[in-house]
Amino acid sequence: MRSVYLDNNATTRVDPEVVQTMLPFFTDQFANPSSGHNFGSSASAAITTARRQLQALIGAEFEHEIVFTSGGTESDNAAILSALEIMPDRTQIVTSVVEHPAVLTLCAHLEKRHGIKVHRIPVDQHGRLDLQAYRMALSPHVAIVSIMWANNETGTIFPVAQLASLAKEVGAIFHTDAVQAVGKLPIHLKSSAIDMLSLSGHKLHGPKGIGALWVRRGVRFEAMIKGGHQERGRRAGTANTAGIVGLGKAAELALKFMEDENGRVRSLRDRLEKELLQRIPDAFVTGTPLERLPNTSNIAFEQVEADGILLHLDRYGIACSSGSACTSDSPEPSHVLTAMNIPHISALGVIRFSLSRDNCDDDIDYVLDVLPGIVSDLRGSSSVTPKRAKRRRPLGFVDPKEKGRNPS
Amino acid sequence: MRSVYLDNNATTRVDPEVVQTMLPFFTDQFANPSSGHNFGSSASAAITTARRQLQALIGAEFEHEIVFTSGGTESDNAAILSALEIMPDRTQIVTSVVEHPAVLTLCAHLEKRHGIKVHRIPVDQHGRLDLQAYRMALSPHVAIVSIMWANNETGTIFPVAQLASLAKEVGAIFHTDAVQAVGKLPIHLKSSAIDMLSLSGHKLHGPKGIGALWVRRGVRFEAMIKGGHQERGRRAGTANTAGIVGLGKAAELALKFMEDENGRVRSLRDRLEKELLQRIPDAFVTGTPLERLPNTSNIAFEQVEADGILLHLDRYGIACSSGSACTSDSPEPSHVLTAMNIPHISALGVIRFSLSRDNCDDDIDYVLDVLPGIVSDLRGSSSVTPKRAKRRRPLGFVDPKEKGRNPS
Ligand SMILES: Cc1ncc(COP(=O)(O)O)c(C=O)c1O
Ligand SMILES: Cc1ncc(COP(=O)(O)O)c(C=O)c1O
Repeated sequence: MRSVYLDNNATTRVDPEVVQTMLPFFTDQFANPSSGHNFGSSASAAITTARRQLQALIGAEFEHEIVFTSGGTESDNAAILSALEIMPDRTQIVTSVVEHPAVLTLCAHLEKRHGIKVHRIPVDQHGRLDLQAYRMALSPHVAIVSIMWANNETGTIFPVAQLASLAKEVGAIFHTDAVQAVGKLPIHLKSSAIDMLSLSGHKLHGPKGIGALWVRRGVRFEAMIKGGHQERGRRAGTANTAGIVGLGKAAELALKFMEDENGRVRSLRDRLEKELLQRIPDAFVTGTPLERLPNTSNIAFEQVEADGILLHLDRYGIACSSGSACTSDSPEPSHVLTAMNIPHISALGVIRFSLSRDNCDDDIDYVLDVLPGIVSDLRGSSSVTPKRAKRRRPLGFVDPKEKGRNPS
Repeated sequence: MRSVYLDNNATTRVDPEVVQTMLPFFTDQFANPSSGHNFGSSASAAITTARRQLQALIGAEFEHEIVFTSGGTESDNAAILSALEIMPDRTQIVTSVVEHPAVLTLCAHLEKRHGIKVHRIPVDQHGRLDLQAYRMALSPHVAIVSIMWANNETGTIFPVAQLASLAKEVGAIFHTDAVQAVGKLPIHLKSSAIDMLSLSGHKLHGPKGIGALWVRRGVRFEAMIKGGHQERGRRAGTANTAGIVGLGKAAELALKFMEDENGRVRSLRDRLEKELLQRIPDAFVTGTPLERLPNTSNIAFEQVEADGILLHLDRYGIACSSGSACTSDSPEPSHVLTAMNIPHISALGVIRFSLSRDNCDDDIDYVLDVLPGIVSDLRGSSSVTPKRAKRRRPLGFVDPKEKGRNPS
């Protein structure tokens, strides 16, 4: 059976070249990069190379602005906690309703247990941030603004450069969770007003368990994980040499492929999306179609459950997801779609297709062959009762065709 | 040139079998273990296997008591912060003066910035904990006791089972940093009063960037890194599948080699130590010789600087360290030796030899061939001025011979 992986926003395959680059650091150059001896110094040099590779990918001015962490979640947590520690007089956070749980769960905890006020900026039906509400929330009480660069479910891109400039006006630190953006979009931090940026290796064909927090030079920082002096005192713990070297290589490849491959991936995504909507009635794309990651298509199918679709796709060897992997265990509807006020969300099966440079035309053809049948079969046997009377017109940019269906 | 690695307390070589076990999880079973599809479920099954392998090594009752983290430092931080969060009425910590910076740096921060009172229990000249002071520090104000199982510099083993029982009497959580003990000593958590235990993959021939915190069932726990529901809500972030699988395999091998290999390593260590002390005058072992890790020998050489010794050993391809790698950047004397009140610490070159199952008799012969000459050459050209008049007898278990030396 063919196997088609379209769940690259959950995680990506490690590029074989990345694995090759990592290998010597397990059994050969395995020494502690903080050790004084020669065994340690080659590991230490390799880490410097990785820092430069990442620096290039995100357009950072100084390589030492990069702090290696264990992944996107840790980076997000560390950014927010640092801001609160270094500015104890400021007790508010501004974020959005559609952030990843790595931001939202921490914020909820800080609010509930530590007296921090959290402003969660809403989005419109297209997933776009309410700029008016954002401006209103900013004040000199705000320690940190944390708004994602691109959303993991819809792919919607936020105007972080503009949001950062506004945050600066009130002296707040501006952090962006760019876990889904790095490697997919060109990023030039040097010339922005952004103070901190999170990224994660496994979203760009690097290994899991490694990520980074970029902290602009001059921005004060308090380490979340405390201990030894690794990462200039900004992240303690023996450096994960192999992981860091792998992330560096992944960054180098991402930059190299940035133009050509991302263009190709975008075409694949566009074709998949267009043809699925042509072949499957009563379906629409969520999120703004324009300001969107090139690899993501989040499609809502009416009168069918996401789990059913996913199960059948899985049987055909196709991997996608509904919402993000971190929350797929929970049966609740996606907080992102809920925030977008997608109508009748409980009667919609929303599937996220997320591509990468590992995908090819045949993958798309296969999904186009298989999925229309799955959806119509499921609709045919569906236990979801259509509540036509109460329905409003869905607000996605592709209007669903208003035609009757027979649930039996 | 021969190359002899005797810095295994800093980090170990990843066992080639461990690397082989990890490899498929980079490019083949790379999917997110939290994803619902088939791609994700083989990764998820592999993580369960790893949990069981670790469970066996540390004698835990339930596999789900194991929470995977990014390493020893994170585990230590998470344990302490959790205790303070779940018992906000208790505002004291009991720890020792010889803990790793992963514990001490966090405690210093909590003391300075968050009003937490920290009791740092002293040790005697042999590195043994002052039990009297320990009992005195315990009270119902104590949220957590954090005492290491074995010290990373001297190898001294602490009576954690007994300490844990005492902590229970005042209702405190007992955590032990067992980063240096796991894989080197038999551990049976089930039948102990210990509540939490930290371990790290790269100290037992597993990869860097992965570790675990064991949390006894029934002990309430608040995650430090917050986000998705991974690790049953106790540690957010996409699971580092390859790292976890590697740690599991490393645990399996450590258990398999526990008896035979640790006995062999102990003999190597004992021979190295005995013969070095025979060949090099004015040297003594720090820490109690009896309650000690089988692989560690921390030797103080009088009237010579550690850096000089290390530099010359390095030229001969021999890797050791002075103090721990995490602090080797800083020129201050080791906090462990300072705490032990080793006299004239500034005129002592203290070298830690830490062995592993990768070492053999030839390694020891080579060091025995090379080191006596290095020390006597350095002493011959030493700029360290002997202050004989003020010297007390060193307190290590091997008395230095009191013979005159000529610094020129
Ligand atoms: C937007 C976003 N932020 C943060 C994360 C968390 O990253 P990690 O899984 O590396 O901790 C993810 C992915 O899981 C994500 O999509
Ligand atoms: C006793 C002890 N605790 C904690 C640590 C920290 O572990 P890691 O480097 O995996 O964060 C180390 C080693 O560095 C150690 O020796």
